Amino acid sequence: MLEQRYSDAVWHRINQKTKPVGALGQLETIAHQLAMIQSVNAGDLVTNIELSQPTAVVFAGDHGIADEGVSIAPSAVTQQMVLNFLAGGAAINCFCRANDVALKVVDTGILIPVEDDSTDFIVQRLGSRTENFAKQAAMTVKQVEQGIELGQLLITKLIEDGSNIVMFGEMGIGNTSSAAAILSALSKRDAKDCVGRGTGISDEQWQRKVELVEQGVSRCRDQDVMSVLAEVGGFEIVQMVGGFLAAAKHNTPVLVDGFIVTAAAYAATLINPHCRDIMIFAHQSHEAGHQYLLTELDAKPILDLSLRLGEGTGAVLAMPLLRAAAEFYNNMASFEEAGVIVD
Amino acid sequence: MLEQRYSDAVWHRINQKTKPVGALGQLETIAHQLAMIQSVNAGDLVTNIELSQPTAVVFAGDHGIADEGVSIAPSAVTQQMVLNFLAGGAAINCFCRANDVALKVVDTGILIPVEDDSTDFIVQRLGSRTENFAKQAAMTVKQVEQGIELGQLLITKLIEDGSNIVMFGEMGIGNTSSAAAILSALSKRDAKDCVGRGTGISDEQWQRKVELVEQGVSRCRDQDVMSVLAEVGGFEIVQMVGGFLAAAKHNTPVLVDGFIVTAAAYAATLINPHCRDIMIFAHQSHEAGHQYLLTELDAKPILDLSLRLGEGTGAVLAMPLLRAAAEFYNNMASFEEAGVIVD
Repeated sequence: MLEQRYSDAVWHRINQKTKPVGALGQLETIAHQLAMIQSVNAGDLVTNIELSQPTAVVFAGDHGIADEGVSIAPSAVTQQMVLNFLAGGAAINCFCRANDVALKVVDTGILIPVEDDSTDFIVQRLGSRTENFAKQAAMTVKQVEQGIELGQLLITKLIEDGSNIVMFGEMGIGNTSSAAAILSALSKRDAKDCVGRGTGISDEQWQRKVELVEQGVSRCRDQDVMSVLAEVGGFEIVQMVGGFLAAAKHNTPVLVDGFIVTAAAYAATLINPHCRDIMIFAHQSHEAGHQYLLTELDAKPILDLSLRLGEGTGAVLAMPLLRAAAEFYNNMASFEEAGVIVD
Repeated sequence: MLEQRYSDAVWHRINQKTKPVGALGQLETIAHQLAMIQSVNAGDLVTNIELSQPTAVVFAGDHGIADEGVSIAPSAVTQQMVLNFLAGGAAINCFCRANDVALKVVDTGILIPVEDDSTDFIVQRLGSRTENFAKQAAMTVKQVEQGIELGQLLITKLIEDGSNIVMFGEMGIGNTSSAAAILSALSKRDAKDCVGRGTGISDEQWQRKVELVEQGVSRCRDQDVMSVLAEVGGFEIVQMVGGFLAAAKHNTPVLVDGFIVTAAAYAATLINPHCRDIMIFAHQSHEAGHQYLLTELDAKPILDLSLRLGEGTGAVLAMPLLRAAAEFYNNMASFEEAGVIVD
């Protein structure tokens, strides 16, 4: 639980800096959140935010719904992109390099497994891919529980190994359908409001995607979060839910990427509302459902760069702004220190 | 002049990367602009964007209009903030440190001069401060010419010394009034549409500010850019105009900060339209007039963090996104290289 008792002291420190009150906008909100989290952990007001071993974790999983032809690419591309991540050639690799962020890739259940003995590649498969949720439950509740457990263990280990800021991303052909279905089922919004264009589909494919989501959601009436995740979730999504729960337990901030990660974030807050306190929303997706999720979570993302790639790219691109927020909180002069008199 | 002949080749390279076409949004636009500029300079398609010695230049100057009480702080604060910059305690210092950007501070004419022998402090004063533009011309056309010359020399030297990416920022109590008047005079928009709240003023002060701007603008009817700058400009603004002209001449990209720097950018493009090609707009200001300037310049800024500080803070905060754009352009795998087959 993130305690509120340091809030006034942190705002006071921020407001004494040599700038008009509020003039650093969202960076002030970020600095406040980070300082609050670290003050609670320290049991005292921190005057120096430290961001240690920033690490992006990309959860990859495949989806049975991809068989319905609602994506621009076949499931095999998930594996090809995982190989690309491991070879260092994907966008997420570039952004991690540019921003000095470590990268872990997790196989939560991709269709075609990958052999790789890198310590940055973690294999914790819940299966080969989910079932086609338009026809049957994507997975069992037992698999959901197992996935949450595995995600929790992974993020707990990362934190225990020294990361105090993590970024979640995902890769999985078909997973916008799953995220849309989770949003629709949990927020009781119409499927057509929740379904976007993914990485680029036609009007006809979109109509079909809405129908498929509706089929999955029709089995979710009055179900709890765990059952919704079983009916229409994804292996990467349930492991991210576990990751958020672990981050909340260890009071560690997570930069949340776009639509799919935010769907996992939303599910996690319904399991434990305190998850919200450690979430920092990185990027505004133009996927139809993302704004609804952000509204549910009362969140305004830091960046809006018209990205539509996933992989955690938006989260990692926001990392330098956290460093800038920490730097001003830590080292910017107060009016008194600088001898600036504005009264 | 930025030639268009490399444009297709640069887009081709970007579109072959392992992502859906356009999926990196504004980062693709940035990569394209940087690669185009550097290709023209190299006389050949560059496959490796290099960003060397990124440097922020903060132009400080005082304004006679400040006597009218339209600002939240007196002119003396400009000097206090310059001292803060030189001591490393301001927001711009923090963001330069966090983002590995060098900082130069220029006294273009602040009310109370500063003694400092740092090589990062450049004194090229056009006076103690401008005249009160509500009552008379802020400066002479000769001062405008001198300021443009000094700005050109400064930025030319910076580029010749090895910087191939620069950021412009400003400090000057009263300079939102000057920027609003420049916008109003050059775009023929009503003063009330161009005048914002600065760093925080009352309704009554705002009304007064509109009237003052109208008084200055009333002398600008059918005047050319140089005369408008003389009537209602600022010492820091005319030196930035010179800076943009030099950057255009040397085909070097400039990250443009918020409202005041964008007013200088707008004036520069009216003197030489090719200036627009080297401008990258960093931050969306919520100052009323900024959106009009951006519309005139057909620009969409990279960031919108509700900053209202100036100093070049928005420009420097955008620098990591340029590095990320360069990194993906340089090192992200193509579909062929990664063995990813999507159709």
